[in-house]
Amino acid sequence: MTYQAAGVDTRRGDAALKPVLERLKETWQLRGNVELDFGHFANVVALGSVGVAISTDSIGTKAIVAQLMDRYDTVGIDCVAVNVNDVLCVGAEPQAMVDYIAVQQVDPDVLDGIAKGLTEGARIAGISIVGGESAQLPELIQGEDEGGGFDLAGTCIGTIAPGTAITGSRIRPGDVIIGLRSSGIHCNGLTLARAAFGVTRDQPVSERRDILSEHYPELGSTLGEELLRPTRIYVAEVMAMLKGDVDIRGIAHITRDGFLNLPRLQADVGYIIDSLPEPQPIFRAIQDRGSVPDPEMYFVFNMGIGFCLVVPEADTDAALRIAGDHRAEAYAIGHVTEDPSRTVEVTGPRLRGRRDEGFQKVS
Amino acid sequence: MTYQAAGVDTRRGDAALKPVLERLKETWQLRGNVELDFGHFANVVALGSVGVAISTDSIGTKAIVAQLMDRYDTVGIDCVAVNVNDVLCVGAEPQAMVDYIAVQQVDPDVLDGIAKGLTEGARIAGISIVGGESAQLPELIQGEDEGGGFDLAGTCIGTIAPGTAITGSRIRPGDVIIGLRSSGIHCNGLTLARAAFGVTRDQPVSERRDILSEHYPELGSTLGEELLRPTRIYVAEVMAMLKGDVDIRGIAHITRDGFLNLPRLQADVGYIIDSLPEPQPIFRAIQDRGSVPDPEMYFVFNMGIGFCLVVPEADTDAALRIAGDHRAEAYAIGHVTEDPSRTVEVTGPRLRGRRDEGFQKVS
Repeated sequence: MTYQAAGVDTRRGDAALKPVLERLKETWQLRGNVELDFGHFANVVALGSVGVAISTDSIGTKAIVAQLMDRYDTVGIDCVAVNVNDVLCVGAEPQAMVDYIAVQQVDPDVLDGIAKGLTEGARIAGISIVGGESAQLPELIQGEDEGGGFDLAGTCIGTIAPGTAITGSRIRPGDVIIGLRSSGIHCNGLTLARAAFGVTRDQPVSERRDILSEHYPELGSTLGEELLRPTRIYVAEVMAMLKGDVDIRGIAHITRDGFLNLPRLQADVGYIIDSLPEPQPIFRAIQDRGSVPDPEMYFVFNMGIGFCLVVPEADTDAALRIAGDHRAEAYAIGHVTEDPSRTVEVTGPRLRGRRDEGFQKVS
Repeated sequence: MTYQAAGVDTRRGDAALKPVLERLKETWQLRGNVELDFGHFANVVALGSVGVAISTDSIGTKAIVAQLMDRYDTVGIDCVAVNVNDVLCVGAEPQAMVDYIAVQQVDPDVLDGIAKGLTEGARIAGISIVGGESAQLPELIQGEDEGGGFDLAGTCIGTIAPGTAITGSRIRPGDVIIGLRSSGIHCNGLTLARAAFGVTRDQPVSERRDILSEHYPELGSTLGEELLRPTRIYVAEVMAMLKGDVDIRGIAHITRDGFLNLPRLQADVGYIIDSLPEPQPIFRAIQDRGSVPDPEMYFVFNMGIGFCLVVPEADTDAALRIAGDHRAEAYAIGHVTEDPSRTVEVTGPRLRGRRDEGFQKVS
């Protein structure tokens, strides 16, 4: 089973986006204050003496799991997380967010649940939610139950001194990759995860609900609870490192494409990841049930590490200590190599890959 | 026929949002830099020496018309328009935007068309599009043709000196309401407009297409072309007034709720609108075919005026002259009255109403 077979073709999507980005880039001449190229986790716009980082993202089909579980008070945390974590990647401090909720029909309980999560996410991230839009789009959104569909996205802004965005350009061979533990599946690969367990439209809705409500001893919870576990928010520990004496040279949010997010950093180097902690049991469960090959697993899922920081070797201990101070599980998971092809190697499952090409098994 | 009967219940939506906004407001203690209350067209966050205005909005079911017309190169203009016009309402200068495209399936031509419109909208508004997200959500979005569904939203940021947002607080009885012409239906009431013409799921898709492709002599175009006419972007003329010597005391984007957007301004005054230009023929056509009562028409649609500015009487001519310099059709459409109940009266169709209550016919 693959992500593509489950209905999400990221390569086709990426190919289609190339001309789109070329067009949109034409608009950058209009103001002349855009600091970064497309491809970073966030962009930065210089507005006078302030650099404003901005990024937008959605929770994807985690909304479908929420609907099937009839549980809406956690996805707002995910919505905050996917956005603040991206803004954090350029070294900016997340400040404020707006949310976008598109619903098939208005259900006050659903909206209130979503708001609960957004508020909790904002509290964890230390940001304010200053506005939003809720749209009723009965013909455009579809639900697991008639009328129950919703989509949840947001946009986060953060601040950074103009011209100081962390892009990865100072990364050097020998630098250490610090990995921060994810809380589980986060917001990526949900479609493949659901497909692996048969939670798709091929099954009647009652069956989809039954599968999600089943208790899995290896997960210690129901599948639905595991898949709904909120995305980890890395703001506190990363801001502490940025404000402390850790020289953070590159930051990557490990979302779709997994560790192949590292070569999005602007450094012509390679990455060897050789000390990964064991992925959470959910990943093994998805892989087993869906017969998903290793290269696909590591391309679609975070496999236990949701955020990476690249630091000089000398700063490794300081970074790990600050993470510990914030009760964040952190590991030195690998290091940077001299390799202009920007290859990423994950030694455990014997994978090697380049961005846009995915992982291949090393024989 | 009413908006509610067509499937969009804005009052139910608003009622459900009240507790949501209460929750989200709790987050404002976290940073202490949120300048405005909910209910404004945009909020402003003080980030050091810069006030950043932010607003998010979608094009609604205009996406459905685009799909049925197989024409995607204009909705991006709408997406920019709905967002920059909102940011403009607090007196901020729109600077940059991110877009959010959720698709059922990836179609490179659709994405390229959307990008064309976004780029054109950005050019008109003088902003850069610095990032975005495109999500493949095959089970969450539905299309008129299988796989063809999409949703398009965005978030705009703008700049304004901290503490100087235009809220309407300086509006005084006797002030003049300047109305700027809309280009037609803009992005509000599309569901009711489609319902009035029978472009709904009750009809087979070929029939929906046929209705939209029909030429209407009174419109001078096909229905689809008329409904897809891009939302007017008011940035150039309004920024010229703001930078010129017009004392703009209140700004309202005339979206859903029509002229009942005026009482969103923070002034305990009333508004009499007594010199409206003739609404475009599309509004008469919707009203006739859908037997939509006047109060509903003026509550759902902009009825020919897409943007309002409140200025002292002495600045009326200057405002109209600057609008003319930018080839914007502008009219002195009414004036502000002493009326703490914030009632809006539209004399032509003999309507009177208060925010949250809608319009009633005056006998």
